[in-house]
Amino acid sequence: MSNLNNLRNKLREQPILTVGGAFDAMSAKLVELSGFDGIWAGSFAISATHALPDASILTMTEFLGVASSMVEACNIPVIADCDTGFGGPGNVIHMVRKYENAGISAICIEDKTFPKKNSFLENESHDLLPEKDFVAKIIAARDAKQNNDFMIIARTEALIAGLGVKEAINRANAYETAGADALLIHSKQKNTDEIFEFTDSWQGNIPLVVVPTAFPNVKLKDLAEHKIRIAIYANQTLRSAHSSMLNILKKIKDGKLHEVENELSSMEDIFKLQKTYSIKEKEEEIEKELKKLGYIT
Amino acid sequence: MSNLNNLRNKLREQPILTVGGAFDAMSAKLVELSGFDGIWAGSFAISATHALPDASILTMTEFLGVASSMVEACNIPVIADCDTGFGGPGNVIHMVRKYENAGISAICIEDKTFPKKNSFLENESHDLLPEKDFVAKIIAARDAKQNNDFMIIARTEALIAGLGVKEAINRANAYETAGADALLIHSKQKNTDEIFEFTDSWQGNIPLVVVPTAFPNVKLKDLAEHKIRIAIYANQTLRSAHSSMLNILKKIKDGKLHEVENELSSMEDIFKLQKTYSIKEKEEEIEKELKKLGYIT
Amino acid sequence: MSNLNNLRNKLREQPILTVGGAFDAMSAKLVELSGFDGIWAGSFAISATHALPDASILTMTEFLGVASSMVEACNIPVIADCDTGFGGPGNVIHMVRKYENAGISAICIEDKTFPKKNSFLENESHDLLPEKDFVAKIIAARDAKQNNDFMIIARTEALIAGLGVKEAINRANAYETAGADALLIHSKQKNTDEIFEFTDSWQGNIPLVVVPTAFPNVKLKDLAEHKIRIAIYANQTLRSAHSSMLNILKKIKDGKLHEVENELSSMEDIFKLQKTYSIKEKEEEIEKELKKLGYIT
Amino acid sequence: MSNLNNLRNKLREQPILTVGGAFDAMSAKLVELSGFDGIWAGSFAISATHALPDASILTMTEFLGVASSMVEACNIPVIADCDTGFGGPGNVIHMVRKYENAGISAICIEDKTFPKKNSFLENESHDLLPEKDFVAKIIAARDAKQNNDFMIIARTEALIAGLGVKEAINRANAYETAGADALLIHSKQKNTDEIFEFTDSWQGNIPLVVVPTAFPNVKLKDLAEHKIRIAIYANQTLRSAHSSMLNILKKIKDGKLHEVENELSSMEDIFKLQKTYSIKEKEEEIEKELKKLGYIT
Repeated sequence: MSNLNNLRNKLREQPILTVGGAFDAMSAKLVELSGFDGIWAGSFAISATHALPDASILTMTEFLGVASSMVEACNIPVIADCDTGFGGPGNVIHMVRKYENAGISAICIEDKTFPKKNSFLENESHDLLPEKDFVAKIIAARDAKQNNDFMIIARTEALIAGLGVKEAINRANAYETAGADALLIHSKQKNTDEIFEFTDSWQGNIPLVVVPTAFPNVKLKDLAEHKIRIAIYANQTLRSAHSSMLNILKKIKDGKLHEVENELSSMEDIFKLQKTYSIKEKEEEIEKELKKLGYIT
Repeated sequence: MSNLNNLRNKLREQPILTVGGAFDAMSAKLVELSGFDGIWAGSFAISATHALPDASILTMTEFLGVASSMVEACNIPVIADCDTGFGGPGNVIHMVRKYENAGISAICIEDKTFPKKNSFLENESHDLLPEKDFVAKIIAARDAKQNNDFMIIARTEALIAGLGVKEAINRANAYETAGADALLIHSKQKNTDEIFEFTDSWQGNIPLVVVPTAFPNVKLKDLAEHKIRIAIYANQTLRSAHSSMLNILKKIKDGKLHEVENELSSMEDIFKLQKTYSIKEKEEEIEKELKKLGYIT
Repeated sequence: MSNLNNLRNKLREQPILTVGGAFDAMSAKLVELSGFDGIWAGSFAISATHALPDASILTMTEFLGVASSMVEACNIPVIADCDTGFGGPGNVIHMVRKYENAGISAICIEDKTFPKKNSFLENESHDLLPEKDFVAKIIAARDAKQNNDFMIIARTEALIAGLGVKEAINRANAYETAGADALLIHSKQKNTDEIFEFTDSWQGNIPLVVVPTAFPNVKLKDLAEHKIRIAIYANQTLRSAHSSMLNILKKIKDGKLHEVENELSSMEDIFKLQKTYSIKEKEEEIEKELKKLGYIT
Repeated sequence: MSNLNNLRNKLREQPILTVGGAFDAMSAKLVELSGFDGIWAGSFAISATHALPDASILTMTEFLGVASSMVEACNIPVIADCDTGFGGPGNVIHMVRKYENAGISAICIEDKTFPKKNSFLENESHDLLPEKDFVAKIIAARDAKQNNDFMIIARTEALIAGLGVKEAINRANAYETAGADALLIHSKQKNTDEIFEFTDSWQGNIPLVVVPTAFPNVKLKDLAEHKIRIAIYANQTLRSAHSSMLNILKKIKDGKLHEVENELSSMEDIFKLQKTYSIKEKEEEIEKELKKLGYIT
C-alpha cells in the first residue's frame, strides 16, 4: 500500500473524508479527478451497470474485477463494498486475501443475512445475522489481513432493519471489540435524526462512516460535528449517468442530437482520461533509444 | 438466435437501422429502452470505462465479457466491435465461435494492423493490413460461423488512412467477395462528402454501415438515400455519462448537491432497470407453490 | 442443445450412463476420448486444481468458466456440479440461465447449507437445509430453464448427514414432486448396502444418479440392476494426475527423468488433443482460396 | 515481492535453479512440494489444459488468471511465459504492470512474430521479429517494471528458426544491452551441442535459461558447467497427467478400476493440498474467541 492509497493515513490527516461512488474505472477516475479522498466500489451501482439486482447475484470474482480495475487506474484509496462477505468466515478469509492483494485499501461487510436485499428497498424484510455470526466474520477478516493499514469496515444494518439505535450501538460495540477498523452506520431515514442520535450516544473509538443517500443535503461540517469521519456519496454518479444517457438517446432518436451535442464531453476529453497519449509518448521515448542504439537513423 | 436479436431479419424489415453505443449492460439496456434497433459494443467506449487507451490493450476475454452481459440483459441485437480480430485467421476462428456462442448477433473487424490506434486520433499513422491478409481473416470468419444469420461486418479504414475513395471501393469489393455480410465504411471527415462519394460509387450488394461521429447531425433520411442501412451512434452515451458525472461530482464537492439532485434518476428508476422486483415476484410465486405443497400454512 | 450433448436423449437410449470426472478442458476431452457418456465438472476436483478447499470458496464465475471451456472442447454432455446453488432461489435462477446459455447439459444442486463442506470429510457436521428451502430452489431452477432437455439434478445428502434411508426417501419424493429431472443419492458408506436399500425402496420415476467414490469397485451391471441410471466417477482423474505428477517431479529432482520418460505422453499426443493441426489445415484451405482469388501465385 | 518469491535472490544463492512446469495451482503446488526452486507457468501446458492450440489463442487475461492462482497457492517464484508479449510495446507495458502487481516474479517474452507457433512443431516456419522490434519490447518492459527484482526474461528463438548460433548470439547481445534481466536460449536439437556451442561462445553477463524438452536427460551439473543458471522442465507434469488419466479412464471403462485404485492419490492427499483443514482450524480458533467474548458457553 503506497501512501497515496492509504485510507488510514488520510483519516489521520483530515477531519472528514469525502468518498465518491463509482462502478467502473472511468467513474472512479472522475471521482479522483474531482478531488475526492477515496472511491466507493458499491455493489448497488456495480450490479446496476450489469443490469442485475443488488441481491448477491454478481459474484465476488465480478465485484473484485471491477474494484481492481479502479485500483489500477487511480491513486486514491478504493473502498470495496463486499456485502455480507460472500459467505461465512472461511469465505471472508479468502476474500480479504484477494482484495488486499489487489491493492484495495478497505473492505466493507454488513451484518445482513445472505443473500442480501438492497437497503433502500421498501416493503422488504431486512434480516440481520445473529451478532455472534457477524462477529465471527470480523474476527476472520481481522486475522486474514496482512497490512495493518488495510481496513475492515463493519457495517451495521440495525437501523435499516428497524431495530433501533440501542441495538445499533450494541452491534457497533461488538464489532469494534471484535476488531473492526471502522464502523459504517446505515440509515434510510430522510433526515439525520436517527444517525445523529446514534453518533452522539456511541462511545466507541473507531472512525464512523455514513452513506447520506436518504439525506443527501446534509453539510459535511454537520457530519463532522457529529463525529463522522467518512461520508460516502455512493450512487449519485450512477444516477447521473443513467439520467443523462436516457436524455441523449432520446435526442438521437428524435433527430435532435445537435441540440445537446455541445453538452457532451469531447473525444479529446475521453482520450485524456484513457491516457491515450502516454502510449505515443512512450513510443517516442523508445524510438529515441532505438536511434541511440543505431537501429534507426 | 431468436428473432429478437436477429440483425439480418431487422435489415429485411426496415430501410435503415439506428444502433446506439454502449459500454456495459446498463447503457445497453438504456439503448434498448430508448427504441434503438441494436447495440454497439464499441471498443473505444469499453476501453474508456476501463480507463485504458483504445489501442488493443483490453483482451478479447474482457471485450467478450462486456458484450455477453449486454446480450443477457437485452432483447435487441448486440454488434460487437472486435477491432482487428485479435490476431490472425486462427484467432478470428476462435473469436467467431466464442462470440456466436455468447448470443452476439454480429461482429465487426477492421483492416488495420494490430495493435490498432483509435481512428479519431490526430497525428497518428493508421496503417492498413495488406488486402490479402484481411481477406484471409474474412474467409476465416465466414467459415467459422455456424448460423447463417450471424453477421460478419468488415470495416475498411481506407478513408481514415488517407488512401482515398478508390482504394476504399477496392477494399469493399474484395471483402464482399470474400464473404463479408456487411461493410462498415469509416470516415473522420467533418461532413458527409467523402462517405457519400463512396456510397454513391460503390456497386456492392451487402448492407452499408456508418459511424457518424464526425458528422453527427446528418439526417437518417439522407443516410438512407445514400444506400446506408445501419447508422451507429457509437460514443454519445459515453461522452454524456462522462460529462454529467464530472458535473455532479463537482456539485457534491462544492456542497451544492441540492442544486442538481432533481436531475438525477431516482433509486426507483435504477431498481426497475435492474429488474429488482422480478426476484420478489418470483419469491412470491414460489411461496404460493410451497403453500400448495403444504410447506407453509 | 445438439443431440450430442443431450443427456436426456442418452438416458433414453442406454440403460446406464458412465460419466467421468474432469477439472479442465483437457481432462474433459480425455473423458470423451475414452468413451464415456458424459463429463462431471465436479467442484471438489475444480477446487483442488485451484489449491482451494471444496467449501464454496471458488465463485460461480470460476466454476462456470471451467465448465464452459469443457463444453467448447467436447461433444458429450457436461454435468455441472453447482454445490448448493450459490445462494437462495434468486441465485439459482441466475445460475440456471447462465449455465444453460453456456451449453451445459445439466446442473446438480445439493440440499446442504451454504457454505458447504465436502461430503467425504470426517468429523464434520453435514447440515441439511430444511426441505422446504431446498424445494424452493428446485422450483426456481425448474421455472428458469428454457429447454426441456436441460436437466436439474437434485442431490440429497441425507445419507451423508446420517439421517438414514427414510429421510433420504422423503427428500427424494419431495424433490421429484417439485420438478427435479433426476436424483443424485450420495453415500460415503464403503459398500453399496445403504445405496441399494435406498434404490430398492424408492418408488419415484426420475433417473437415479450415484457417485461411487467410496465403493469404486461396484459393477455397472449391479448398479443398473438397482435402478441406477448414471454412475459418476468423479475424482479418479484428479487423483491419478496428482499421483503421477508427484512421481515425475521426484524423478526430475533426483536426476532420473530417463527412467520414466517413456511413460509420459508425447508432445505429439498433446498437439493432437489441442487440435494444433486444425489451424494449419485451415491456413492451407484459406491459402487455396487466396490463390483462386488471385492474391497468391 | 517477499524473499520467498524473489527469483533474483535465489539466483544469487544457488549455482543453478530447477524450475518445474505447471498449468494450474495444484500442479504448481506439487512443483513446490517436490522441492523445485520455481514454477514455470507455460503457455503450451496452459493452452493444452484448455484444449486449445499453443498459438496465441488464449488471451493475456486467461494466462494471467492461471499464473495468479499459482502465486496465491505457492511460496516460490512463478515465472510466467508471456509468448510474444501480447502485442507491441504498448501491450508489453500493460502486461508488465498487471503481472508484477499480481505477485509474479518474472515474465518471459520471445522474439517470434505474433501470433506464434509452438517451437516444437515440425514443418512450421518460425518467423522472428526484426531485432529492432523485439528490442523495443524489452525497453518497454524494462521501463514498466517497478521493483528491480522483478525479472524480464528475453527468449530468443533464433536456433528454433534455424538461423544458427551466430544470430542467436547477436540477438542475445542486443537483448542484454536493451535491459533484459535474463536470457532464455531455446533449441529443439535432440542433444546439447547447439545449446552448449551458444553458451560457450556467449560473453554476456545476464543469467542463461534453458528448457531441456528435446534433451531431457542432460545432467544439471553439465548445464551448470556451461554457464546455465536456470533449467525449466516445462511440460513433463502435463504429459504425465495426460498419460495417467488416459490410463485410469480406460481401466474404469473396462470395469478394472480395482487393478489401479491403489496407484491413485487418496482423497486425504487432495484435502491436504487444498488446505481443507485450515478452514476447520480457523473455525475452531474463532470459536475459542467467541467463547471468551461470551457468545458461546
